[in-house]
Amino acid sequence: MTYAEQLSADQARIESSIAEYVDSLWPFGNLVESMSYSLLSGGKRIRPILTLASCRFCGGEVTKALSFACGLEMIHTYSLIHDDLPCMDDDDFRRGRPTNHRVYGQATAVLAGDALLTSAFEVLAKAPGLHTDQLVLAVRCLSEAAGPSGMVAGQILDMVATDRDSTFEQIQTIESLKTGKLIEAAVQLGCIAANVEGERMQALTIYAQKLGLAFQIQDDILDYDGDEAELGKPIGSDAANGKVTFVTLKGIVGCREMVRRLTEEAVEEIKQYEESGFLCWLAEMLAERKK
Amino acid sequence: MTYAEQLSADQARIESSIAEYVDSLWPFGNLVESMSYSLLSGGKRIRPILTLASCRFCGGEVTKALSFACGLEMIHTYSLIHDDLPCMDDDDFRRGRPTNHRVYGQATAVLAGDALLTSAFEVLAKAPGLHTDQLVLAVRCLSEAAGPSGMVAGQILDMVATDRDSTFEQIQTIESLKTGKLIEAAVQLGCIAANVEGERMQALTIYAQKLGLAFQIQDDILDYDGDEAELGKPIGSDAANGKVTFVTLKGIVGCREMVRRLTEEAVEEIKQYEESGFLCWLAEMLAERKK
Repeated sequence: MTYAEQLSADQARIESSIAEYVDSLWPFGNLVESMSYSLLSGGKRIRPILTLASCRFCGGEVTKALSFACGLEMIHTYSLIHDDLPCMDDDDFRRGRPTNHRVYGQATAVLAGDALLTSAFEVLAKAPGLHTDQLVLAVRCLSEAAGPSGMVAGQILDMVATDRDSTFEQIQTIESLKTGKLIEAAVQLGCIAANVEGERMQALTIYAQKLGLAFQIQDDILDYDGDEAELGKPIGSDAANGKVTFVTLKGIVGCREMVRRLTEEAVEEIKQYEESGFLCWLAEMLAERKK
Repeated sequence: MTYAEQLSADQARIESSIAEYVDSLWPFGNLVESMSYSLLSGGKRIRPILTLASCRFCGGEVTKALSFACGLEMIHTYSLIHDDLPCMDDDDFRRGRPTNHRVYGQATAVLAGDALLTSAFEVLAKAPGLHTDQLVLAVRCLSEAAGPSGMVAGQILDMVATDRDSTFEQIQTIESLKTGKLIEAAVQLGCIAANVEGERMQALTIYAQKLGLAFQIQDDILDYDGDEAELGKPIGSDAANGKVTFVTLKGIVGCREMVRRLTEEAVEEIKQYEESGFLCWLAEMLAERKK
């Protein structure tokens, strides 16, 4: 199987597992429809893919990491729904479709986000085939990464950081919380599912930090000169909002160079280990992505 | 110690445990301040009180239930913050103070709610002195009660139920989800902390169902003829919103009678057991409450 085939197979696993969860819910009002709309909207599934790949890298059975991968994607999806709300970023489009609140209204969008956030922990705590020690570690890992010392902290800092004085270090701190923490959690959840700690988990965490930062810089590059049709959203929104980004601070050439360097460092961190091929390939592929 | 003294002692335990959690957080932006504002706003703490009391009723050490009690109160608090948002109930006051978004703005209020919801599961999964089996049961219990088949389902149904055709059964279904599920979870978390299942947990769950419904009917009564100063919020908001409530369906006399009957049935369910005194007293007290 090629790495590209591996990626497709893992994506298919994740899609069907998420769809299965949604189908298991009783459709009160349009809550589940609204949850599904955002959950099953053709995202790249980078985070759950990292969870499955990390589990495999650690010698674990990938099916044991599937619930953790889905719970993580539910957290990511809730954060997008709430982030798009009029009182937050006020975005009308995501992945080429109207945002959740544009379709279902703000109240339902708030509740769909709340439901996904809550369900994420239910899915983690009910992951089949694992010891309760592993389930508890997973809940701790994801709640720390997503909560007021992780992703939500990044979002609040991002909200107040629209002034022109932000430094590179400040933007990096914001992004390491807002995007980085969940990407770190992604690889750590894979390790927990494989029951592996220690050196491999540490190497993977550094890999995830480098990859997460490269991912965010690439996002800023694409917002600056990406293809609107391919991205499924208007470009230039950062500039229009007067937002300081990696591109405004380091220029487009400087950013491309950083993505390249961070990707090399991420690969460097894990390539000494057996079974690191897919994760190295994935890092390279993300650095080249156009959407 | 009298039951009233017991209640005060448990309330003090809960307050200091919640304050301790908030103090442990790094204050990114005004996120933690906004979380504290709503968490430490002098609520009645009925749900966490029920958790501690149920643990004691089951012969458990009350300190072992403290983290579960706090996590539950964090879920309750997040739901109030999101419920008060302009796109939801659009309330300006709660417990005699401006609502969270009136003080911190909508974006911060959304994020403070998200942070509390996430932290609740962190607090549960880190509860000291318990086996991981118990921690997993607690996460499952609370996520089921609060998620898209529990509290959030109740909120979505409540949103669409403003028409004049709602029946008593429909309102009861909404309330059993919106308020009842968390009250059931409250007693179940106490049982889990005490490592007790079976007959006592079942009796407590029925007690909680009766008490939860009585509690909600009493809320409707107080919204109809309560004392605004004592309640800390304007009365008559249900009527002003054209909302069908237990009072519009059964009248004030009918509602008082239902509260009385449900409270008796709740007490009946548990009074045969030793150590049920406090829980019986609490049910009676809640039926008499003026705020």
